[in-house]
Amino acid sequence: MVGTDKAGKKDGIVELARRRGFLWQAFEIYGGTAGFYDYGPLGALLKRRVEDKWRDFYRREGFYEVETTTISPREIFEASGHLESFTDPAVVCKSCKSFFRIGETVNVGLKCPECGGELEAAGEFNLMFQTRIGVSKGESDERAGRKSEGYLRPETAQGIFTNFQRLLRFNRDKLPFGIIQIGKAYRNEISPRQSLIRLREFTLAEVEVFVDPKEKNTHPGFEEVKDRMLRMVPGDGQEEEKSIDEAVRHGIVANEYLGYHLARVAEFLEKIGIPHDRLRFRQHHRDEMAHYARDCWDAEFLSERYGWMEIVGVADRGDYDLSAHASLSNVDMSVHADAAKITPHIIEPSYGIDRILYALLESSFDEEQVVSEIRRVLRFKREIAPIRAAVFPLLNREELKHKAREVFQKLRDAAFLIEYDDAGSIGRRYRRQDEIGTPYCITIDYQTLEDDTVTVRERDTMKQVRVPIGKLKEVLA
Amino acid sequence: MVGTDKAGKKDGIVELARRRGFLWQAFEIYGGTAGFYDYGPLGALLKRRVEDKWRDFYRREGFYEVETTTISPREIFEASGHLESFTDPAVVCKSCKSFFRIGETVNVGLKCPECGGELEAAGEFNLMFQTRIGVSKGESDERAGRKSEGYLRPETAQGIFTNFQRLLRFNRDKLPFGIIQIGKAYRNEISPRQSLIRLREFTLAEVEVFVDPKEKNTHPGFEEVKDRMLRMVPGDGQEEEKSIDEAVRHGIVANEYLGYHLARVAEFLEKIGIPHDRLRFRQHHRDEMAHYARDCWDAEFLSERYGWMEIVGVADRGDYDLSAHASLSNVDMSVHADAAKITPHIIEPSYGIDRILYALLESSFDEEQVVSEIRRVLRFKREIAPIRAAVFPLLNREELKHKAREVFQKLRDAAFLIEYDDAGSIGRRYRRQDEIGTPYCITIDYQTLEDDTVTVRERDTMKQVRVPIGKLKEVLA
Repeated sequence: MVGTDKAGKKDGIVELARRRGFLWQAFEIYGGTAGFYDYGPLGALLKRRVEDKWRDFYRREGFYEVETTTISPREIFEASGHLESFTDPAVVCKSCKSFFRIGETVNVGLKCPECGGELEAAGEFNLMFQTRIGVSKGESDERAGRKSEGYLRPETAQGIFTNFQRLLRFNRDKLPFGIIQIGKAYRNEISPRQSLIRLREFTLAEVEVFVDPKEKNTHPGFEEVKDRMLRMVPGDGQEEEKSIDEAVRHGIVANEYLGYHLARVAEFLEKIGIPHDRLRFRQHHRDEMAHYARDCWDAEFLSERYGWMEIVGVADRGDYDLSAHASLSNVDMSVHADAAKITPHIIEPSYGIDRILYALLESSFDEEQVVSEIRRVLRFKREIAPIRAAVFPLLNREELKHKAREVFQKLRDAAFLIEYDDAGSIGRRYRRQDEIGTPYCITIDYQTLEDDTVTVRERDTMKQVRVPIGKLKEVLA
Repeated sequence: MVGTDKAGKKDGIVELARRRGFLWQAFEIYGGTAGFYDYGPLGALLKRRVEDKWRDFYRREGFYEVETTTISPREIFEASGHLESFTDPAVVCKSCKSFFRIGETVNVGLKCPECGGELEAAGEFNLMFQTRIGVSKGESDERAGRKSEGYLRPETAQGIFTNFQRLLRFNRDKLPFGIIQIGKAYRNEISPRQSLIRLREFTLAEVEVFVDPKEKNTHPGFEEVKDRMLRMVPGDGQEEEKSIDEAVRHGIVANEYLGYHLARVAEFLEKIGIPHDRLRFRQHHRDEMAHYARDCWDAEFLSERYGWMEIVGVADRGDYDLSAHASLSNVDMSVHADAAKITPHIIEPSYGIDRILYALLESSFDEEQVVSEIRRVLRFKREIAPIRAAVFPLLNREELKHKAREVFQKLRDAAFLIEYDDAGSIGRRYRRQDEIGTPYCITIDYQTLEDDTVTVRERDTMKQVRVPIGKLKEVLA
């Protein structure tokens, strides 16, 4: 495991991700715009696989998915508190007029990192992208202006909350139930200089679980998850690895519902390939919590490039949102339970899909010395690898190519994502597939023409075995 | 086939879609905003099924998917021509200040449909949602203002075009190749009164095929599709049903590439359940074509509610987009082919997913008299039905419920989307599933406890057969 040092390795994955079509800076032909990235063909496949796994994971909880709009009118964020509280403090350079977010490395009193000029406080900036819905004559008229104000959502959750009564009816008026949503969300960052992880446009996968507040301490599935081990950093304590059962019993995690979902988050992340030893759960301090949260735990990934970074947030939002919408809209958001009317509480695991993809790329990336060369390989779990297998003719001869295309077609018809490659030496073709994390390379040689067997080479071990063509589907499945 | 007349039936589907959780007007608790709809749990499932089928359909062409940003800076739409040409003419009422789009039913000279006031021309309105990226001190300064201008994309295509050189390299510098993308797009409609089909936020599924202009007349897969029959309305001729081969040979369709993709569009739409006799292909007249198109055919669905409506557009964009981006960005967009440099042409099938879903709902909806009742049923094809099967205990008895839950769990573990229902009479439960288009209802009764067989009732025929539990997966697959 040598080749390059750590600094080289962490740059290596960024270079590979760009070169092989995972992740591209958007609008690069026009110089690029900070905070916007595009997924190339392999990145989009990886993203789809992770999203599909996620969807399947929460569907098994019995949760249904919805898809709500990304643009919302002003009222939504008036009620949700985002108009007032979703802000960052900024400083501006007196001389070059660049804006910076306060915190991290920049502060009033320091010099401008761009030109060395003097910085001054520039107030709080709201982080929502604003737009205008439709046209209205009276745009100078304040009331008409407000009516047409629209915002790009900073979280997908509000689209679920505003449909709460319909969703409750869909669930036949019974609590608890869960709703999931995957979709774009937006933060108009002041200065997104850590470009890969601080995006202005990103994908969230959110779960909103509506629960009777009296039942937060008895989750019917807790028994199933209780022994899962989590590395935890409580707000007022020190890091320790413990079972979720212990964490709930000792009051480190406030209730079984929150505990259950923390355990499920850990399960999902490890299932798709985030290494257990690069994952921890950190409780927010009171002063860093979002305005709607009563309690919040971040699942953090230890990045070689960025240090500990949040990839999932698990919040107890209490009745904040439903009460706020009920009050602003005058629509009842309560539920009849036990001869009383209660407003449900909301437990919300919110996954940052782009950061999870970055974490998967970084932690799967490996470089090793093989004979006189450096082999770069993405050690993706088989189920999330963009391409399941590649099919090669050993040599560039018509009879081998013909047979290889036949095998390729057969596997593709079985709904696997397969590549065909006949360009360059066999060694070079292996290296191309290693770089994009393809678990299997299938080679057609002259023996294949005689006995219908092929060689299957496994990515991680580089071992080759001979397999009858009729058994390939089984090997790949 | 009676029950209600046509007017009743077309309203019936809208009522059902809302009541059963397919499609909801967004922000209804705040009075709603025209042009915005949310997908409820069943609508989101249906949408996912159609998108997955689409993805799979084009992947089999060897096309890769990308995912690019929904916000873009000004330059993109300067080059694409949308800033200048993506506009609608409007009129405004002098008295109530309501705006209307010219065309359809409203015109200068007529009276305001809202208040009867006088209408006057209000100029051309750009249909893109505008926003501002980041903060910049110099917002009064025109140059700085322009630099931070952002727009929500009106089509997903531009994100593919701006990455053209990278995509070409991904395809190892060879033409032709195809790239697909599914994602949100936006049109800030002036007055979206036909709310279900004229949305301000919608989903497009787009295919961009890059081809050497000299090769547009020889598509390698044309032989495979040539006998497909299409009902066609050429720009200057009359409606006729003919094979795509005939249409290309007679010059009704300009080239094989366009012909091939028209045939594929028809194939896909019929495959997911759009009836052949409610589908036609209409060529645009010169004056209705988008600014970038050389030729354009719309696949239109005959709606009982809206008449013929576009659901897919298939355009020959020529070299318009690549040449425009090359010229504004000064980045080379040509391809080395036959010892010359050429700019590829683009053939683009662009699917309006929301309208296709509406078309599926409308054309699947049926009402029929069964004994003394009206049965409402969505006759979805099995592969796109949101729920594959429902499992019922015949009676509300613990031993039957226990067995039913066992069967439910088993089928769910086999990755089918299954519902469990034990509420109300068996007849009522059948009706609930008919309304959401579930192909199979599985009932557990006392015979099940003896011999492990269940009844399977098929949605369309309402026939019941007895099936061993061990064979259920096979029946459902």
